[in-house]
Amino acid sequence: LIVSVVILHIGGLMPQLRRDPTSGKWVVIATERAKRPDQFNKENVSVSGECAFCYGNEGMTPPETLAYRGEAEADTPGWQVRVVPNKFPVFAPEGAGGEDGQGLFVSAPSYGGHEVIIHSPDHNRSFAQLEVEQVALVIEAYRDRYLYWKADPRIEFIEIILNHGKNAGASLEHPHSQLFAMPLVPPAAADQLRGSAGYFAETGRCVYCDTIKDERSAGVRAIAERDGLFLFAPYASRLPFETWILPTEHQPFFERICDAEMRSLGSMLIDILERYDRVLGDPAFNLFLHTTPCKSESTDYHWHIEILPKLTAIAGFELGTGMMINIATPEDAAAYLRGDRRS
Amino acid sequence: LIVSVVILHIGGLMPQLRRDPTSGKWVVIATERAKRPDQFNKENVSVSGECAFCYGNEGMTPPETLAYRGEAEADTPGWQVRVVPNKFPVFAPEGAGGEDGQGLFVSAPSYGGHEVIIHSPDHNRSFAQLEVEQVALVIEAYRDRYLYWKADPRIEFIEIILNHGKNAGASLEHPHSQLFAMPLVPPAAADQLRGSAGYFAETGRCVYCDTIKDERSAGVRAIAERDGLFLFAPYASRLPFETWILPTEHQPFFERICDAEMRSLGSMLIDILERYDRVLGDPAFNLFLHTTPCKSESTDYHWHIEILPKLTAIAGFELGTGMMINIATPEDAAAYLRGDRRS
Repeated sequence: LIVSVVILHIGGLMPQLRRDPTSGKWVVIATERAKRPDQFNKENVSVSGECAFCYGNEGMTPPETLAYRGEAEADTPGWQVRVVPNKFPVFAPEGAGGEDGQGLFVSAPSYGGHEVIIHSPDHNRSFAQLEVEQVALVIEAYRDRYLYWKADPRIEFIEIILNHGKNAGASLEHPHSQLFAMPLVPPAAADQLRGSAGYFAETGRCVYCDTIKDERSAGVRAIAERDGLFLFAPYASRLPFETWILPTEHQPFFERICDAEMRSLGSMLIDILERYDRVLGDPAFNLFLHTTPCKSESTDYHWHIEILPKLTAIAGFELGTGMMINIATPEDAAAYLRGDRRS
Repeated sequence: LIVSVVILHIGGLMPQLRRDPTSGKWVVIATERAKRPDQFNKENVSVSGECAFCYGNEGMTPPETLAYRGEAEADTPGWQVRVVPNKFPVFAPEGAGGEDGQGLFVSAPSYGGHEVIIHSPDHNRSFAQLEVEQVALVIEAYRDRYLYWKADPRIEFIEIILNHGKNAGASLEHPHSQLFAMPLVPPAAADQLRGSAGYFAETGRCVYCDTIKDERSAGVRAIAERDGLFLFAPYASRLPFETWILPTEHQPFFERICDAEMRSLGSMLIDILERYDRVLGDPAFNLFLHTTPCKSESTDYHWHIEILPKLTAIAGFELGTGMMINIATPEDAAAYLRGDRRS
């Protein structure tokens, strides 16, 4: 999957991909965010001073790569959604890497893109508190930047994520999403792609379409369905209150989403986040979008969104085994999120 | 790897394994630890009242499965190291599961063992603060309980872990390790086993033995070597200041460790934890032991210990992609941990 491996010694500034010689898994080493050791063990403190994502501070970020705005000039106030390169990119146009000359130590350039999608000018409004139109505009920015990076021949996969709350790793207050355009298909996506291809080869059907059908009849894990979207707690939920949103019609490619679908998705996202807030009190969460890899023409896969509230710690068992322990059944979670059961 | 799948409907109490229909990954659903939703989002607070792991409170735990002590009766004070079943087991003798009747929803009994190894009677002494003899005794308990569970024909893999500090998921203050005896080989172990078998097939050599050789000559990631043990920061470190301890002689099976080796390992563990304390100020960490699966007679693998300080959050990127982002190079980490560089 890593296509080109150039010989290049790095000065420790540009991000780099390194392959574990035994497991074969790739790790991103991105030291631009690095701190001195004595800074690691401190509590994260909000950076004093002004927010780089608020109106008037556009000069504090790298120049925008996209903004929805009226007549106003680039990198000035007046935008509704703004996209800028991450100041500390994990994948970068100048990604460093290359074999370092010894057999077991394989690296690769961590070429690519890492962008921040600022949800709105409002520093204090969370994703769940935005209007449907505004969330639809954020999704449009996802789509537009997805298409931009998909056109880059070196990009294999694009992951879009939203971290909400400190426990979910959000390091800046002003609500935003992140887009990672990568030179490889990451393991979690590869597992799903292999699974859906295998299921298709065996049955001639999409495993996600069948999941919707089976979840509809099982009933116990379904939460809501409307406007072509199905919201449920998956059977093998990895964390308490994990939910997924699937388009009910088979669609491998997120980037083909149309205006009406962006609005429906925005509405469904607000819906599930409001349910989380009612049941769990605005929990921290990680949200991500999985879709068919950029260069694949296979139509087995079915794009979707996964949302994982961060209510329990990821500890030694999970890191050591690669397996998750979930202390709530998805059947219970769905009952609470439907409102059938109350705390 | 899951051998027997029995048909059994669960009442929601016993732990259960569930297979993700797409990725094929198994998740443990263990709801005995469950809370009501309104309890999830609260800060963990130390349980008021007495510590079940201190002298005199032996009756607060299930009966001990092992204790090193003099003449004293079981489940009374006087022990040096004590092992008890976890009150909220993730794998249990009565593990529930079985297909629930619909094609995509596959579960399996999460049969097995989940034990707590109490490091010492001292509530306030961390692992790093124990005497070498005491740490060697903890390792002896790892070995003895490993051998006990290995004899169980339904157990495929045994993972021993130590979580230190709240950020690493330690939920009880009194220092302890945990042993998980499982009916499957978990993905992280399977990845390493596949990699070491592949390397052996290709070269006729052990990938870990070669790593030691190459790290010795590279020098930059080595931290210490003595008494048959090699301590280093691995090339593709997943987290800042990750370190591994490998026996320098090839040894696939941890359970063959002898008394002298337990003492050397105890000393090396105290050494690295003291280095962490000096450089990072007693950081939270996850430690785990990886060895050849219980039923394998293959000798390709090389048992070792991995230690991951928990200095940064595991966020949406890591959960969504299955890839880790490391914001410190292992070369820098090793320089700090050797004492060549200071903050």
